[in-house]
Amino acid sequence: MHCITNIVVAGFTANVLLAIGASPAMVENPEESGEFATIASALLVNLGTLSPSIEAAMRQAATAARHAGTPWVLDPVAVGALAHRSRLAAELLGDGPAIVRGNASEIMSLAGHTGAGGRGVDSLASSEQAIEAAVGLARRIGGAVAVSGAVDLVTDGERLLAVPGGDRLMTRVTGVGCALGAVMAACAATAGPLEAAACASALFAAAGERAASATPGPGSFAVGLLDALSALAATP
Amino acid sequence: MHCITNIVVAGFTANVLLAIGASPAMVENPEESGEFATIASALLVNLGTLSPSIEAAMRQAATAARHAGTPWVLDPVAVGALAHRSRLAAELLGDGPAIVRGNASEIMSLAGHTGAGGRGVDSLASSEQAIEAAVGLARRIGGAVAVSGAVDLVTDGERLLAVPGGDRLMTRVTGVGCALGAVMAACAATAGPLEAAACASALFAAAGERAASATPGPGSFAVGLLDALSALAATP
Amino acid sequence: MHCITNIVVAGFTANVLLAIGASPAMVENPEESGEFATIASALLVNLGTLSPSIEAAMRQAATAARHAGTPWVLDPVAVGALAHRSRLAAELLGDGPAIVRGNASEIMSLAGHTGAGGRGVDSLASSEQAIEAAVGLARRIGGAVAVSGAVDLVTDGERLLAVPGGDRLMTRVTGVGCALGAVMAACAATAGPLEAAACASALFAAAGERAASATPGPGSFAVGLLDALSALAATP
Repeated sequence: MHCITNIVVAGFTANVLLAIGASPAMVENPEESGEFATIASALLVNLGTLSPSIEAAMRQAATAARHAGTPWVLDPVAVGALAHRSRLAAELLGDGPAIVRGNASEIMSLAGHTGAGGRGVDSLASSEQAIEAAVGLARRIGGAVAVSGAVDLVTDGERLLAVPGGDRLMTRVTGVGCALGAVMAACAATAGPLEAAACASALFAAAGERAASATPGPGSFAVGLLDALSALAATP
Repeated sequence: MHCITNIVVAGFTANVLLAIGASPAMVENPEESGEFATIASALLVNLGTLSPSIEAAMRQAATAARHAGTPWVLDPVAVGALAHRSRLAAELLGDGPAIVRGNASEIMSLAGHTGAGGRGVDSLASSEQAIEAAVGLARRIGGAVAVSGAVDLVTDGERLLAVPGGDRLMTRVTGVGCALGAVMAACAATAGPLEAAACASALFAAAGERAASATPGPGSFAVGLLDALSALAATP
Repeated sequence: MHCITNIVVAGFTANVLLAIGASPAMVENPEESGEFATIASALLVNLGTLSPSIEAAMRQAATAARHAGTPWVLDPVAVGALAHRSRLAAELLGDGPAIVRGNASEIMSLAGHTGAGGRGVDSLASSEQAIEAAVGLARRIGGAVAVSGAVDLVTDGERLLAVPGGDRLMTRVTGVGCALGAVMAACAATAGPLEAAACASALFAAAGERAASATPGPGSFAVGLLDALSALAATP
């Protein structure tokens, strides 16, 4: 599993992937990211923290993934709120991600590049408000779009699945959404985009509920979430 | 809350901010950091791990914060021990941080750029030895200076507050001091520099004591500190 | 302890070093890394996540360490699987690391630059298969080579030590191997290469067993490993 993600969540993302039995490797330099995207089973591109070097690595990896048929996930963190990354995300869409995962504002903004409008930060929109944007974006990329929120929504442009559950503590730990995108990529190595996105969302919702039931605060919850993901992933 | 911080503590810092109810975003590239410092409620600039790209982002963000009136905190990690970052910190001071937070050696070194002397690493000085340097630096920036140590000291150049408490385990977990600087920035979004720095220090001291009372080691302590911060911040 | 390591494990590595009583500092920019490698007691160079700036910092630090007599550890993450870092690792070998630590595939690949062959990922080789490569590499650098696996092997080219123990959960937490390399560097500040590598491996094996005995999953295990390392390091 090739991950290009941000400095805030890299460790947690790797631990989530290890917990579910995946094998993560972060390769984020342009000299290597294309080569690694070719041999990896799946790729995550998360726009959290950028630099000229990392952006070049993202472009190399996305293009190599397209040529090699490696399924990849785009997580357009904060797109819409900042102009530079909005342009980068629009450009990366051209390499055909299997899945785009974001919150409602990010998905609405990204879809807006083709005329659907939408710009802002998470608190300004609910998942339901992003349905039209998500459906349009899924059709455009020929893959799936996942909108994270109180209820997660997943669509491939034809079907629309709602994944309820989870816990509010999931918004009090950094990287839960980013790690969910990584797990979608891991699932996309062996399943279609809609199934991968929906299964990953359902796994997180179940693990979040299990972890929240036994924890006094966000520190313990992050630890319990890893334990719960590991236990659920090992259940036959 | 806009954070430009280092790769070691970025995740822990984000989790601390989320625990107290703040909303962190790390934006550390020069193409975006000025734009984001303008729309954020507060900014942290922590010199822990540097690169040419991040230094440019720090300069853009600090200048944009000054123009926009965004309160910002400078954490001059290891200033005095390394020449390059000492020059960078001195330059950033010109953009008028609301708060400077460091250990005694860092504060003495930073103040020394205007003639007060001081250079070295943490163990060479106690908080009390840095009082004169802190008072002078606070007057120079027209803000507050916080000196972390066994007893935290906070001054705005006129008043001097001592914040006792905490626990020695706080020095056995990476990023506690860095996260304290981030919380000071979050507090500075709604309070004056002296009040923000003192309240953040007091919150950490109380949370550290609570977490230490129930933990067998530094791993558990880091988890418990997040739980304690969340519980204390939620107390009306 | 000067660390140049990757964004995935930087926080965990710092916490491991603090847990055993070491004092870590990550300095990874070329403007400062040479200066800091000169004044630090030991240096870790871990190739996990690269960028042009970090590679320059690694070269500066390794060369400065050689000139200053600072013992340093090379952790050639994913060498063999990717061409660019394989060249970088081969070049850094010229600065005479005291210890090289990797998994069997990495050690075999690195030794192969001098003709011993070997290329691939961890699952393709066991520690035992890398003995010949490790012995040859240790003789070449005049230091020690540690091969991590189900049984850790350590050699200085003359003696060969096997360190059993540990727990499979150590492979389900990111950064355990990387942090082990950092602890080897910390130990090399006061012991010879073979002793440092073997003692660090034995400490991790014992801590891993202790932590695994009381944990339901990988999240709890990572926390317990830090607690166990701290307790074991404090034992006289």
